[in-house]
Amino acid sequence: MPDPSAEGVWGRTPGPESDVAMSTRIRIARNLTGYRFPRKLSAAERDSLTNRIREGLDLAQIGTQPVYHDLADMPPLERMAFTEKHIISRELANGSGRRGFLWDEDRLLSVMVLEEDHIRLQVLRAGLDLDDAFEDAMNIDGRLERQLPYAFHQRFGYLTACPTNAGTGLRVSVMLHLPGLVQSGQVPKVFVAAAKTGLTVRGIHGEGTKSLGDFFQVSNQRTLGQPETATLASVVRLVPKIIAWERGVRTVLMETDRMALTDRVWRSLGILRYARRLGSSEAMEHLSAVRLGVQLGLITGVGLPDVNSLFVLLQPAHLQILKGRPLETVERDEARAAFARERLKAENN
Amino acid sequence: MPDPSAEGVWGRTPGPESDVAMSTRIRIARNLTGYRFPRKLSAAERDSLTNRIREGLDLAQIGTQPVYHDLADMPPLERMAFTEKHIISRELANGSGRRGFLWDEDRLLSVMVLEEDHIRLQVLRAGLDLDDAFEDAMNIDGRLERQLPYAFHQRFGYLTACPTNAGTGLRVSVMLHLPGLVQSGQVPKVFVAAAKTGLTVRGIHGEGTKSLGDFFQVSNQRTLGQPETATLASVVRLVPKIIAWERGVRTVLMETDRMALTDRVWRSLGILRYARRLGSSEAMEHLSAVRLGVQLGLITGVGLPDVNSLFVLLQPAHLQILKGRPLETVERDEARAAFARERLKAENN
Repeated sequence: MPDPSAEGVWGRTPGPESDVAMSTRIRIARNLTGYRFPRKLSAAERDSLTNRIREGLDLAQIGTQPVYHDLADMPPLERMAFTEKHIISRELANGSGRRGFLWDEDRLLSVMVLEEDHIRLQVLRAGLDLDDAFEDAMNIDGRLERQLPYAFHQRFGYLTACPTNAGTGLRVSVMLHLPGLVQSGQVPKVFVAAAKTGLTVRGIHGEGTKSLGDFFQVSNQRTLGQPETATLASVVRLVPKIIAWERGVRTVLMETDRMALTDRVWRSLGILRYARRLGSSEAMEHLSAVRLGVQLGLITGVGLPDVNSLFVLLQPAHLQILKGRPLETVERDEARAAFARERLKAENN
Repeated sequence: MPDPSAEGVWGRTPGPESDVAMSTRIRIARNLTGYRFPRKLSAAERDSLTNRIREGLDLAQIGTQPVYHDLADMPPLERMAFTEKHIISRELANGSGRRGFLWDEDRLLSVMVLEEDHIRLQVLRAGLDLDDAFEDAMNIDGRLERQLPYAFHQRFGYLTACPTNAGTGLRVSVMLHLPGLVQSGQVPKVFVAAAKTGLTVRGIHGEGTKSLGDFFQVSNQRTLGQPETATLASVVRLVPKIIAWERGVRTVLMETDRMALTDRVWRSLGILRYARRLGSSEAMEHLSAVRLGVQLGLITGVGLPDVNSLFVLLQPAHLQILKGRPLETVERDEARAAFARERLKAENN
């Protein structure tokens, strides 16, 4: 069971450029020769392949204290909590049959087993930390490759269940907090710039999800016919520009109407400290404003790690695990308000 | 200049039925024989009549420490502050030419001179205190009548500038706080019941004004062909019913969804404690919710007199007097937020 006090990468000390960049993720999709893709596997094949991969993971000796979690045996709430921590995908959590993941809290490393592909290796970092995450991911991938027979094609590169991942199987993504661009209506600018350079922008939980709390994931689209380093370079080029735009807008907001901004962020803190019922989206929206306020020095006495981790801890599964039982929507809203109040109360900060 | 710390009747210890009844007011309109009604008076006549009335006021020895204020010499902001305290009418404050009023803070008594009528005597009380206020007003009126030649007609009674006040010249009114009836959409019921018994319902600053902060003034319409005691009795009969309806609705709200109500009142307190800019109507709305919360015991640590007096102290003129200069709307909103924050801060309560 996930420890509610361990918030994954968002609970960490903020990393580089953390005023805008929440986290960096390198994901590598791999499949083994001799097995069909997960969706086509029989139960027996899922067992056999899981065992094969787990052996490989053991032999590769990745992470410092890796723990393997079998998802078929895990209660739904706990599965959901791992998605809320950005450790595994919703697809893996909500899938069926034998599947699991290895998680190393210390190294912020996860390996999903029998998601869409046989293996999805993920390295997370706080803030914008592309080079370090990339190096770590490539290194781990290399160690795994020495233990497991990867499906590789001369022309198509690493084979994947979905052709859009074939080639490098690499997705480089950065989660950005863009409240300034959202408020000034300039997010479309980010979408256009990303599209022009072969990148894409998604909501907080990946493909097809909404942006909540002004978070956006910027990542590469292309995996075929492009070396890994070129993929990394495309993200390395664009993300700092987006960060600069966001900072520029924040500066303009501070210069043109600092008090309006101050009012907005303090009201959000007031709601978080006083509400008795708080919906999930509303909580994200106010946390976003408070995060902005703390970053800009408009709000003092509230710690950034507290705010960052609340984005995770106020999610439905975390609240239900905290309360030790499933909760109706209204009960969740009350638990969310109570937890936010407790975490953000003035005496704590 | 009005002392911003003296809030008139609303700053007093809450009176009877103060969970719903804010204040009681008895108003008596009188005119002197031998003078036209104020609107028709020349400047010289205004001077002469003012002197005549002030002489009468002195001789009648009303109040304990009465102070006479000449409005023609008073800066607009200070005039406005007296209307915000419910001590004089907007009509008197915004009028022109010689005019003024006597105010006795201790006895909560005011006598407006050259408003619509030559004399408008007002006795205020905290809470629902009709009999006491009525007795006091009739007594003062009697003492004045012994000093001043009132215009009285055998058939029409006391003559007034507007025929709707002729007869007794009496208006009995009670200011009610009806957040429960507002929230449950039952205010029309109050209007209907009032109309049926010859009473009327108005906004917070009398005729033609909007209801702000869920306050409504219930008062008699009729002054002709009805003795004073009958007028008083009609208000005495209806107001307790309205108070009972409001209490009933509050009980239902508490029983059916106490947490929703708790959430609403605490959020309002959060806004008042955290906003950096606060509009006048918004402030009234949140104060209304906080007042309800304190009354229902949902909010603790906030004093009712503090909340009641903020309804007055957060008004535009009071804020500007507090700051010592005229303020633009945005500056007022900032001053209002700062003052609310200071008055309601947790450490104070």
